[in-house]
Amino acid sequence: MLRRLTTPHLVRLLGEWRGGGTAYLALAAALRALILEGRLPPHTRLPSERALATALGLSRNTVTAALDVLREQGYLASRRGTGSWVTSPRLPDDRPDERLAPASDVIDLTLANLPAPTDLGVLASRAASALAREFGGHGYEPFGLPAARAAVAAYLSRRGLPTTAEQVLITQGALHAWDLVLRAFARPGDRVLVETPTYPGALDSLRAHSCVPVSVPVGLDGWDLAFMRSALRDARPRLGYLIPDFQNPTGFCASAAQRVAVVREARAAGALLVSDESLAELWIDAGKRPASLAAKDAGASVLAVGSLSKTVWGGLRTGWIRADPEIVRRLALARGSQDVGSPVLGQLLAVEVLPRLDTLLDSRRKLLRERRDALLKALTAERPAWRAACPSGGMFIWAELPHTTSASALAVRAVEHGVRVAAGPRFGAGGGFEQRLRLPFTQPPERLAEAVRRLAAAEDTLGPRSSTGAPANRWIA
Amino acid sequence: MLRRLTTPHLVRLLGEWRGGGTAYLALAAALRALILEGRLPPHTRLPSERALATALGLSRNTVTAALDVLREQGYLASRRGTGSWVTSPRLPDDRPDERLAPASDVIDLTLANLPAPTDLGVLASRAASALAREFGGHGYEPFGLPAARAAVAAYLSRRGLPTTAEQVLITQGALHAWDLVLRAFARPGDRVLVETPTYPGALDSLRAHSCVPVSVPVGLDGWDLAFMRSALRDARPRLGYLIPDFQNPTGFCASAAQRVAVVREARAAGALLVSDESLAELWIDAGKRPASLAAKDAGASVLAVGSLSKTVWGGLRTGWIRADPEIVRRLALARGSQDVGSPVLGQLLAVEVLPRLDTLLDSRRKLLRERRDALLKALTAERPAWRAACPSGGMFIWAELPHTTSASALAVRAVEHGVRVAAGPRFGAGGGFEQRLRLPFTQPPERLAEAVRRLAAAEDTLGPRSSTGAPANRWIA
Repeated sequence: MLRRLTTPHLVRLLGEWRGGGTAYLALAAALRALILEGRLPPHTRLPSERALATALGLSRNTVTAALDVLREQGYLASRRGTGSWVTSPRLPDDRPDERLAPASDVIDLTLANLPAPTDLGVLASRAASALAREFGGHGYEPFGLPAARAAVAAYLSRRGLPTTAEQVLITQGALHAWDLVLRAFARPGDRVLVETPTYPGALDSLRAHSCVPVSVPVGLDGWDLAFMRSALRDARPRLGYLIPDFQNPTGFCASAAQRVAVVREARAAGALLVSDESLAELWIDAGKRPASLAAKDAGASVLAVGSLSKTVWGGLRTGWIRADPEIVRRLALARGSQDVGSPVLGQLLAVEVLPRLDTLLDSRRKLLRERRDALLKALTAERPAWRAACPSGGMFIWAELPHTTSASALAVRAVEHGVRVAAGPRFGAGGGFEQRLRLPFTQPPERLAEAVRRLAAAEDTLGPRSSTGAPANRWIA
Repeated sequence: MLRRLTTPHLVRLLGEWRGGGTAYLALAAALRALILEGRLPPHTRLPSERALATALGLSRNTVTAALDVLREQGYLASRRGTGSWVTSPRLPDDRPDERLAPASDVIDLTLANLPAPTDLGVLASRAASALAREFGGHGYEPFGLPAARAAVAAYLSRRGLPTTAEQVLITQGALHAWDLVLRAFARPGDRVLVETPTYPGALDSLRAHSCVPVSVPVGLDGWDLAFMRSALRDARPRLGYLIPDFQNPTGFCASAAQRVAVVREARAAGALLVSDESLAELWIDAGKRPASLAAKDAGASVLAVGSLSKTVWGGLRTGWIRADPEIVRRLALARGSQDVGSPVLGQLLAVEVLPRLDTLLDSRRKLLRERRDALLKALTAERPAWRAACPSGGMFIWAELPHTTSASALAVRAVEHGVRVAAGPRFGAGGGFEQRLRLPFTQPPERLAEAVRRLAAAEDTLGPRSSTGAPANRWIA
């Protein structure tokens, strides 16, 4: 049941791991970071020590020593003839959900979520009172509860995207929506267009469906349209996944002209675009954002995906897909063999939340503005050498580190200083982004300031980048 | 985007479609039934008319006339050069969820669910009150809310399967649990052991993961152990899916000896067995049922799956997997790229329901006993030629029709008489079971009696089976 991993693949994942210090300890730390980030999942078999030593230009003894450290720490197991493979590491307090719920003295910047608005309690009670009306039915709702579909349609129409209930399918969130589209429309081996960098969950889902990512670069200045055009025309991807609004992780928000161009290209190439708009309402500076990617489409070329996870609370697990009714039927059919539908009570809660979303959003935006500014201020004070553009919305700063600091090495060292943070390579289908850190500004200002102080302390302990290290692109095999 | 369907595959799906009457109308009705049951999903391309005519021993004109009927009714579309493919049929009242929510004058026997117990309203209010305690967290729970995991562990331990919270992962129900196991452990092309007949959702999920079913026969007398052994040893399936308690659709409940034998064989073959125990608590006659398939296993060979959908209500969408903590971690990792986790509010409701499950079950069993007996009585009165064993629990009677009646033809005709019912072939990975109907006894006694009267009337309108029809096994290519 072990998965194989090729040597070039591991070298690519490792990126620029040489953060200074003893080589075997640095290699062990880099591998541990990949395991902790889930990029080397349990039961992955590593290449042989000999192959790894050759590829990394190290002595065999150095590689053996690094793996010994990880074996001792419980991250690896080995057997003669089989080699070494990743086990599930025993985490500090041995709680199985430690990965997502670190001890309170650690500041976790890997997740970007605001706490729930307190009004949600009252709305949940109302939803509970409405539940009894549904008791006569079977409760299976692969399309979604009619009232929830209608509430989403009304909400989307209100914000300028005319939508009928028939065009809506209720999901467990935006990632689930994307996963469902892959289930209904993709086959193993299909090519799928993604931005690079992009949301790691979308990449993981794509891999779970055995699809092949076709990456198109995106920066703060937007999509690389020439690259997008050639990717669509040459690779002919069946599907594409884009985040046009306050992109995760870059914060980029596409202009109206870019949106028009992308939809035109995708249509010409016959690709179905999924537009993840779950961050769209989180504008901070401007009161107006460009129209939905689906604005000039009935939902046959562009599937607009939304969610309450980022705007309201991750624990709601309610999202939606807005598409042509024919596509909605195919998605519901696919869902019938997956989880049948969302819980009725949770959908009734969404029915209560959606009409009040605008009011809720006012206070969310205020919170985000305050926290974004606090994070930027702390970065300027503590790390003037880092470059951080100010995003006009969303939840993330895509910080650029000086070329002397490797983000992967910093992320590993940061854990020892009480911060968990996602390094750039997690956001690229094939690694890369070794100079980038994604910093969400969802925590209170004083926590963000403390996190930056800890990151600064961690960076100061990293020696200057090893001068024996090869240039960056050596590792991009 | 059209899926191909081979001629032998379609012939197998059609089964014994010749229910008497004009050939082209009978063929059209049989195809329509396959489309309505979702066995011919939208965008499936049919074989050419010529190939179909040859395979079915019909004139080309007869096939053309049948397809014309379906085109006119909106079930098929055609284009020169491409042939005919399935569209999403416009259903009578054009409601997109018609397939799962038929008009109230139709008795729907395709779903097997009791209405929700009214106590659920009070429990939902308690869950809503408890929600505010979770607001500080991010709400992402790929393992499940700690309180929900603990409640499931306590419940399983109470019924004789000692379980810790660490062995539990919360899912959206039993089907979602199975789908998640496939996502974590199966690859496209993997062989997977299933009972035949079995729960159609499990087969659909297996197909969605591009796995290959390895069928082992099951009857009211139990598993065919010799077949099971050879399937495990020769086909070496990586995974298996079994329903040991009041199986869907046969009602079979495995003996203790059979359970021991099956677990031993699976272990010897290195297969991971998923034991769907969502019907286990629905015993009707005997107060005792054999122990869980996982009873002598820590969860490394047998994954016990449960759900509140059948025992309490389908609209809850709460189930679980009980497995070795290492396997639970892998499942949580797989879930992190699917739907992230279940909604917090719904899990809090499960926390309220689980300690009260025994009390709730008492009244559910009483209801099921009354309804099972009413269904059997109606069948004896109206259809003495049908054979129906009395199951000791569960929700289904797996009725055997006289060889003069095709279940597929009857299911099609029954719709015109106001009953929807699932014909036998839906429960086999490759069709078959043309003499079987699955009759759930979840509706009130008077509705069940009326359903049987309507089925009887429908059967009476079917002519005797066409004597020009080939013997049954001709169609099992």
